[in-house]
Amino acid sequence: MADFFDVLLRRKTIRKYRPEAISDNLLKELLTAGCRASTTGNMQLYSIVITRDQDRKKTLAPFHFNQKMVLEAPVVLTFCADFNRFNKWCRLRNAEPGYDNFLSFMTAAIDALLVAQTMCIAAEAKGLGICYLGTTTYNAHKIIDSLSLPKGVVPVATVSLGWPAEDPAQVDRLLVEAVIHQETYEDYSDEIIDSLYRDKEMRDDSLQFVKENNKETLAQVFTDVRYKKNDNEFFSGILLKVLHDQGFIND
Amino acid sequence: MADFFDVLLRRKTIRKYRPEAISDNLLKELLTAGCRASTTGNMQLYSIVITRDQDRKKTLAPFHFNQKMVLEAPVVLTFCADFNRFNKWCRLRNAEPGYDNFLSFMTAAIDALLVAQTMCIAAEAKGLGICYLGTTTYNAHKIIDSLSLPKGVVPVATVSLGWPAEDPAQVDRLLVEAVIHQETYEDYSDEIIDSLYRDKEMRDDSLQFVKENNKETLAQVFTDVRYKKNDNEFFSGILLKVLHDQGFIND
Repeated sequence: MADFFDVLLRRKTIRKYRPEAISDNLLKELLTAGCRASTTGNMQLYSIVITRDQDRKKTLAPFHFNQKMVLEAPVVLTFCADFNRFNKWCRLRNAEPGYDNFLSFMTAAIDALLVAQTMCIAAEAKGLGICYLGTTTYNAHKIIDSLSLPKGVVPVATVSLGWPAEDPAQVDRLLVEAVIHQETYEDYSDEIIDSLYRDKEMRDDSLQFVKENNKETLAQVFTDVRYKKNDNEFFSGILLKVLHDQGFIND
Repeated sequence: MADFFDVLLRRKTIRKYRPEAISDNLLKELLTAGCRASTTGNMQLYSIVITRDQDRKKTLAPFHFNQKMVLEAPVVLTFCADFNRFNKWCRLRNAEPGYDNFLSFMTAAIDALLVAQTMCIAAEAKGLGICYLGTTTYNAHKIIDSLSLPKGVVPVATVSLGWPAEDPAQVDRLLVEAVIHQETYEDYSDEIIDSLYRDKEMRDDSLQFVKENNKETLAQVFTDVRYKKNDNEFFSGILLKVLHDQGFIND
């Protein structure tokens, strides 16, 4: 299994793709592998919308802040938490579903994300490249409209997929010790935080990033530029309204 | 990569484990692979609490409705959405974090789930078996207390991990066509639902399940026995309170 561990350990997000299509058979194989992921009670509370049509991609692109992967990847996959199919089945079988609540949304979202990540690893093992678009939860309402998602369905992750046309350096990660806790959570002292983030902060790309953005620290690039409080609060309001409109939060 | 695809396609959840320990090195290797999963803005908004101590497992077990995997697996991993570490770093770097909102919770939860699933696949590739415990979101408040999770940290998935002591039949899945949609979501007609679920309903284990539970249909086993409306609503209230208490939903 050395090969396979290499796939996992050497993986990197790919944002540039060659124009070649992904065959129906290969895509089906990847999605079939994805669907072997664990799912709560074997309910399979997810759906995957496949976007390949260029006009459809043009419609989706602005909802993903026009990240170019949407237009350039041969396939864009929208992974959705989906209780609609399960609820329809229940109602056809004289069973009254009780899944119009927040817990059920989380259950379905977890199902959908495990499938998404399994599909991504399957794709990378086949030599394909993937990129998660973090914008899905920001503009879920627009994606719902664009993909005709009915009540009971909420998009939670979008992945662009294609044959790599770049081979970027692997990005840094914190040492694994930074994110694991033995038995109980040992909260981080200032000294520990300093030591865990020092290497990251001193990287050339980090220093460059701080400079380009006219900030004093790398952390300020996140709080003041990339992931700002006002934006987060604005999109939180939208996302909670989406959960309400799609039937997962009752008044 | 045929070997690797076999790992994905043949995988099954394992609930019985041999007593052998998992070495520190192997566990670290699995978690390192897990941490190569995509993460929003490379913020790594997750922590993983490792439970190996038998007394700790005894404390955790009731929160997972005493599923025996908690006591019998050599390792139990609790994957948490974690903005605490990132927020501390920001504050030490003269940056004011704006992540006390629902969008930020979802961002961190997605990060945590992608790591969890990558770790699980890494484990299965090494011959280990895993089981997701769907109970984490039900009893998040008790797990928070038990694992000393600070504000900004919410458990979203728990995985038991060990060397397999069983080789169960692989469970069924719907045909992949049941969960994919081309370009837009094509809602399911009654006839389509019938055809998609027929094989599942006619399986011997399904028929047995209906009989054992004194129900008319398989769907009723879900709605009336396994995942009931009252329970879902009760645990939804708790989970929303947890998000509030942990600083992800403001009034």
